[in-house]
Amino acid sequence: MQIFPDRTIGDAGGRSLSGQEPLGNQGSSDGPVIPAWARATAVIKTSLSDYYRDYIACLNRRDWPKLSRFVHDEVIHNGRRIGLAGYRAMLERDVGEIPDLYFSIELMVSDPPYIASRLGFECTPKGNFLGLPVNGKRITFAENVFYKFRDDKIDQVWSVIDRAAIEAQL
Amino acid sequence: MQIFPDRTIGDAGGRSLSGQEPLGNQGSSDGPVIPAWARATAVIKTSLSDYYRDYIACLNRRDWPKLSRFVHDEVIHNGRRIGLAGYRAMLERDVGEIPDLYFSIELMVSDPPYIASRLGFECTPKGNFLGLPVNGKRITFAENVFYKFRDDKIDQVWSVIDRAAIEAQL
Repeated sequence: MQIFPDRTIGDAGGRSLSGQEPLGNQGSSDGPVIPAWARATAVIKTSLSDYYRDYIACLNRRDWPKLSRFVHDEVIHNGRRIGLAGYRAMLERDVGEIPDLYFSIELMVSDPPYIASRLGFECTPKGNFLGLPVNGKRITFAENVFYKFRDDKIDQVWSVIDRAAIEAQL
Repeated sequence: MQIFPDRTIGDAGGRSLSGQEPLGNQGSSDGPVIPAWARATAVIKTSLSDYYRDYIACLNRRDWPKLSRFVHDEVIHNGRRIGLAGYRAMLERDVGEIPDLYFSIELMVSDPPYIASRLGFECTPKGNFLGLPVNGKRITFAENVFYKFRDDKIDQVWSVIDRAAIEAQL
């Protein structure tokens, strides 16, 4: 499955639209012809959004064996090449600290090969979380995170968790 | 200037592509006809990205009188309706605390009417910043931020600053 191309609408390096439009041909009785690349872009955007939702569902099922479908072997997280094993270890540690961890997509902005997502959390970390003594208190916070996909998998992640919001609740 | 429509490619409520494609008509010698909505979407994406870059340039120039071109009167920031005046006051306070504050776009993901941006900062806050005693030390950090546009202006902002990264540098 190849879910995104090298070029998309909105990509600065992409194909010029205005250069290939035959003037006066839009009202044809055959209706508009959607060029293959435009159809592909729409499909790609939908696919990548669906694919990302599947990834989040995988996390919420704690389905770690399936993580390799979504995450690249060489994944980089916040500038560190932690790889798939490191990524899985990070998630397992998070779930160990927060047994009721549940990822909710509050906002998703898709522009292949990138997705940006605002994830919302309402959960009860058992002890310390991000160095803060939460100790079983119910907290809500957000994570704003960017993903770059390569070869149909998450290849780079830039994540910021709203630690200040957690502090304010303690 | 109307820089985004109600519908875009990738919008779940948008127009179906496959339903309006005349089969076997793609190889016409007239070349493909790009429907108006597809052209509009590409223009819109480019416009919104350019518009956002202009907004960031406005901040870097400290051009507060022009802020009203980009920010809605009723803007909501992290769930609080601070309005344009509150938004400007927030920026003026930031620049007061960090005279060399400069906004660099490291990543931008555009999907009208949303933009997600990862902003990078390298600067020297004079005293406290986000409650941390920076006191003139040079620090680098990121902000992952989502914007929703309405009536050509920023209407909602969801921002998370990587405060933990700053703490780690002190």
